[in-house]
Amino acid sequence: MVAVIPEPNTPVEVREVAEPDLEPNSALLEVEVSEVCGTDVYLQQGRLAGVPYPLVPGHVSVGRLQKIRGELLDVEGRRFNEGDRITFLDVHRTCNACWYCLVAKAGTRCPQRKVYGITYGLEDGLCGGWSTHIYIKPGTRCIRLDAEPETFMAGGCALPTSLHAVERGDIKIGDTVLVLGSGPVGINAIVLALMRGALRVLCIGAPQARLDAAVEAGADAALNIETTDEAQRLQWVLDQTAGRGADVTIEATGAPEAVVQGMRFTRDAGTLVIVGQYTDHGSTSFNPHLDLNKKHLDIRGCWGSEFSHFYRAAQLAAQRSEAWTRMKLISYGLEQANEALADVSEGRVIKALIRP
Amino acid sequence: MVAVIPEPNTPVEVREVAEPDLEPNSALLEVEVSEVCGTDVYLQQGRLAGVPYPLVPGHVSVGRLQKIRGELLDVEGRRFNEGDRITFLDVHRTCNACWYCLVAKAGTRCPQRKVYGITYGLEDGLCGGWSTHIYIKPGTRCIRLDAEPETFMAGGCALPTSLHAVERGDIKIGDTVLVLGSGPVGINAIVLALMRGALRVLCIGAPQARLDAAVEAGADAALNIETTDEAQRLQWVLDQTAGRGADVTIEATGAPEAVVQGMRFTRDAGTLVIVGQYTDHGSTSFNPHLDLNKKHLDIRGCWGSEFSHFYRAAQLAAQRSEAWTRMKLISYGLEQANEALADVSEGRVIKALIRP
Amino acid sequence: MVAVIPEPNTPVEVREVAEPDLEPNSALLEVEVSEVCGTDVYLQQGRLAGVPYPLVPGHVSVGRLQKIRGELLDVEGRRFNEGDRITFLDVHRTCNACWYCLVAKAGTRCPQRKVYGITYGLEDGLCGGWSTHIYIKPGTRCIRLDAEPETFMAGGCALPTSLHAVERGDIKIGDTVLVLGSGPVGINAIVLALMRGALRVLCIGAPQARLDAAVEAGADAALNIETTDEAQRLQWVLDQTAGRGADVTIEATGAPEAVVQGMRFTRDAGTLVIVGQYTDHGSTSFNPHLDLNKKHLDIRGCWGSEFSHFYRAAQLAAQRSEAWTRMKLISYGLEQANEALADVSEGRVIKALIRP
Amino acid sequence: MVAVIPEPNTPVEVREVAEPDLEPNSALLEVEVSEVCGTDVYLQQGRLAGVPYPLVPGHVSVGRLQKIRGELLDVEGRRFNEGDRITFLDVHRTCNACWYCLVAKAGTRCPQRKVYGITYGLEDGLCGGWSTHIYIKPGTRCIRLDAEPETFMAGGCALPTSLHAVERGDIKIGDTVLVLGSGPVGINAIVLALMRGALRVLCIGAPQARLDAAVEAGADAALNIETTDEAQRLQWVLDQTAGRGADVTIEATGAPEAVVQGMRFTRDAGTLVIVGQYTDHGSTSFNPHLDLNKKHLDIRGCWGSEFSHFYRAAQLAAQRSEAWTRMKLISYGLEQANEALADVSEGRVIKALIRP
Repeated sequence: MVAVIPEPNTPVEVREVAEPDLEPNSALLEVEVSEVCGTDVYLQQGRLAGVPYPLVPGHVSVGRLQKIRGELLDVEGRRFNEGDRITFLDVHRTCNACWYCLVAKAGTRCPQRKVYGITYGLEDGLCGGWSTHIYIKPGTRCIRLDAEPETFMAGGCALPTSLHAVERGDIKIGDTVLVLGSGPVGINAIVLALMRGALRVLCIGAPQARLDAAVEAGADAALNIETTDEAQRLQWVLDQTAGRGADVTIEATGAPEAVVQGMRFTRDAGTLVIVGQYTDHGSTSFNPHLDLNKKHLDIRGCWGSEFSHFYRAAQLAAQRSEAWTRMKLISYGLEQANEALADVSEGRVIKALIRP
Repeated sequence: MVAVIPEPNTPVEVREVAEPDLEPNSALLEVEVSEVCGTDVYLQQGRLAGVPYPLVPGHVSVGRLQKIRGELLDVEGRRFNEGDRITFLDVHRTCNACWYCLVAKAGTRCPQRKVYGITYGLEDGLCGGWSTHIYIKPGTRCIRLDAEPETFMAGGCALPTSLHAVERGDIKIGDTVLVLGSGPVGINAIVLALMRGALRVLCIGAPQARLDAAVEAGADAALNIETTDEAQRLQWVLDQTAGRGADVTIEATGAPEAVVQGMRFTRDAGTLVIVGQYTDHGSTSFNPHLDLNKKHLDIRGCWGSEFSHFYRAAQLAAQRSEAWTRMKLISYGLEQANEALADVSEGRVIKALIRP
Repeated sequence: MVAVIPEPNTPVEVREVAEPDLEPNSALLEVEVSEVCGTDVYLQQGRLAGVPYPLVPGHVSVGRLQKIRGELLDVEGRRFNEGDRITFLDVHRTCNACWYCLVAKAGTRCPQRKVYGITYGLEDGLCGGWSTHIYIKPGTRCIRLDAEPETFMAGGCALPTSLHAVERGDIKIGDTVLVLGSGPVGINAIVLALMRGALRVLCIGAPQARLDAAVEAGADAALNIETTDEAQRLQWVLDQTAGRGADVTIEATGAPEAVVQGMRFTRDAGTLVIVGQYTDHGSTSFNPHLDLNKKHLDIRGCWGSEFSHFYRAAQLAAQRSEAWTRMKLISYGLEQANEALADVSEGRVIKALIRP
Repeated sequence: MVAVIPEPNTPVEVREVAEPDLEPNSALLEVEVSEVCGTDVYLQQGRLAGVPYPLVPGHVSVGRLQKIRGELLDVEGRRFNEGDRITFLDVHRTCNACWYCLVAKAGTRCPQRKVYGITYGLEDGLCGGWSTHIYIKPGTRCIRLDAEPETFMAGGCALPTSLHAVERGDIKIGDTVLVLGSGPVGINAIVLALMRGALRVLCIGAPQARLDAAVEAGADAALNIETTDEAQRLQWVLDQTAGRGADVTIEATGAPEAVVQGMRFTRDAGTLVIVGQYTDHGSTSFNPHLDLNKKHLDIRGCWGSEFSHFYRAAQLAAQRSEAWTRMKLISYGLEQANEALADVSEGRVIKALIRP
């Protein structure tokens, strides 16, 4: 049983599919829980390029290995056994053979990479998590999951994404970090910024329920974007930073103008990480002299995540779980996938899960 | 004798001034040569904030110490003597006591800094190089100049500025570097990028005479911005970089749209340094998804320069002088200062000098 | 009243001294609490070079400004008033004028620097904290203390020192950090490594009371050096790191052989910070092929600390105080200074304070 | 025809071998020229661990593709054709699946890696360059060679090795770099340090012919280790660095004591790269307080090299060839392999090549 987006802007359908044959060194995963994230909303709306429909969404999932053909090893070289609970990196086939992989060492820009639940469609096999089973292709990077599935999925795909962003932010112990956006990436960025040395974390976002979650996650102060204009937000940031602006700002909003506001909310010689512009929401305008050059600013785009982020995300969820056990989860069956998409799209839930 | 800008948008006047009294640990410098740079054009046009008129321009200068009162030491702790040929860092009074100096270690953003020939006006003393004499205030960072004055001034203020930019670019050995702009900062950036490991340097600028100078300085290829549109420029860059774009781009143009073009001309996961937006030329528009986030780009504003850049610039001019002896210089007397400004403003010269 | 070490290897004496005249922009501090650290033991034993006896020890102190002559500003430019509670950076006169300060930007290696309680002796004024009063010389970097004095002093001089070491360690989120040594620097390094992204922190040290304090500070596991040999320690580290060794090791022991063990306890391509060798304890032997080159190891010496570390230390103590309120402090009067030194020397206390 | 080391400490023999069958996506290379380097001397002496004898040495080679079975692509995705002149990275099978490859991103410490001519023996196929033909296994990283074979081989395996070391040294424009050792790695490090921003390069090595080659390669000054003791060498370095020591030192000697001398010859807060300790030459002694901690030194072990270094090395040899065309090469036939080893072992040649 799989939940399928047949084509852009059509509702998700539940279908029966045959169990796949296993190639050597592949496996069949029985899904316990998969994720509904903002990307899935975009997939349903047909807003991402290079997506082959019909598509089974769900790129981050947890389950148990039901069948293994051949040998499946973790990064420490230990064999997986049938029955093991695992998760796996959704990015597959980063080639380790192209200029981006080998010379630039920019794995997230490898042109060969394929992503379960996004750029692998139903034609490519059972490659999405909104399904009773996932086909684990040879070469998929699996991790033995020590965390509770719910704890790990509370972070979900937002956890490695925000971990990459926080890593790019290069926070110094004692910095004030400003997070723009209070969706899953923003909330995880708050948690991780605090783990990574921030003295104080500020959050600007909406709606109020998500800002409450941001404070719950550790933000020292939160401001609602719905009730303030840009000038008020700037003043709020300055008031809390001795008039200078944040040392490091992490933009996780999806709104182009937030990128420019991020420049203005960051102190001179500070750092701004852009991790909220995963889809084309159009253009915005800025003043290169005032907003960038004179400020001696660092702006760092942050695309995707690599195995290192995913691996460390799984370890954090297992060993420093407290932050994630506080996050509110709502589960849906495969038949409720359209409802889940609607709730995520409207920001009615912090984190939605599919339990097939 | 000094050349003075009495107020914005008035011609430079030559005036007689009295010789200053020397405070303890100050000196009087007899100027051999000073510089005319793009900033001086802006000063005459009143385009920079915080400038006290009347003003004697000329922030980078070379001369001989005519009188010393008290003790003047170089960074190695050696005393300067009367008759020594020196240059000095135009930035004075970086305070080493404020949050930017001590905590952020962002010396070029210290609010206390004063700049000879820019933010020190005639009221502050003989603080500009378009003058027979400069008053070297206590605490000014002086350097014994081993280079020929012309060689050092061929780099002029553009040399430490571009050195800072190249340092921010963090070029790897074998990189292809693209320089946008063929004025003094661009041409010095070409020289320094090659010294700093670039395999190939491309330049896009204008007019043709400056592009010829760019090639003379070591650029492997140059494109004239006057005869191409943005799409042609992009194609030209891609053609020379296996379709990827430059590894590192240094923007040194003064045109806001060049900042956005720089994003597009740089490869995914590459680096773009913004050092050409020293004055407010207005706003520009970009697409944060396509131009920044998806590209996983690093954009680094680069403001001013510090003593370390100036010190190393003086050493390069002395010990690796070849690049700078090739640059074309034109000298003007104090009485010709308005002519010099006009020639620089129109791009008729690569580098103009004042010989008082 | 001051406690003085008259000359090396003589007991501390309490003396009366006259109140100093204040230069412009100086102040008199009424001491509330000062510190007794391992350096003070070495001072009493005459083991540090460049120390002018008679000496008043106590380099990190907290007190209230009793008299101010002229103006005293903090890094944000706010005036201090009489009655304010402050602490101050023990390092004074880092010159901001020499090659190390200006070109290498290695402030802790500035040859001009003077340290209160270490390289300023009684001849230089009331420059040590084991005293009812300290003379705050012009240019001393003061910080308004928002933390409780005891909380801040629980970190004491070890806090900025270990903050510098942790900064040099460049921990990635999810790393396993090994701390060698369980004295004040080691224990603070444990706290800070956890704040700075470590997933797990291991500690090897002695005696047991200090290891208990290490676990209390957050170490996941601790090993007693008194009951294990090098091979057992190595095995213990490997057992807890999937056979690889620690990602980052911070050496804070004072024993030369710990430096070499640190190389062996760190994984290939990992990082080892050396912050425990502040005095000459002699030489040790290692194998450059096996211990360094083949391991592709980074070893980073870490000397002293700068204002940025001290400033952030004060903020951490105020705003993330929990870690430091757990540390055990024992206070001594000026008359008990010899007893305090003996207790520190023997490791009988975690942290000793002088309350004049 | 191959030249084989049958077992440690036996002379090289020339043997006939059958032409191998080609697996899919493999190839047969007709060797034009291969290298004799210090590692080959160690291989013949049995001093490296993990080497399977009988062994065909020669890890860096140039030749023409004689037969291709299936498809062979370069990193830009272009197909190789029979007749193309190529070189290839000697390191094979870096797994991109283990913790070191994926989490630590320390590819040169991947436990799966195999090296042509070193850890691939004759049993593994025609895997060494002292041979008329090399079997290019599937997954071998090949590069189309645009440089002249002699120019590229003048750098040989020392070029990517020293490029990695220079990269680790993180030279700033204007630095003084000291190279310890005047063998192929040292001489290439001189060339690359100058390309990477060094203002001056000093070299300490032996014998005189190699020091002459070091000066020819661009060293500003060279000192003979055979006629000086450690104190004289230290004084020589201080004399040329304003009494401070080198900003960056690259150790490329093979002598354990050079590692410690490197610490002493480097300025406080400078960087020392260790790339000369590829074999176990025993232990050495140092003082952690004086040589490391108080100096605030960075010491960076540097093991092996990755494709990025090899790729950029090939580009440098093609496009900035001048430095390498000056190096003296001596060629030997397969039958003269023992003579070549003896000449290399005795330092009688700068660079020896095998032409099968």
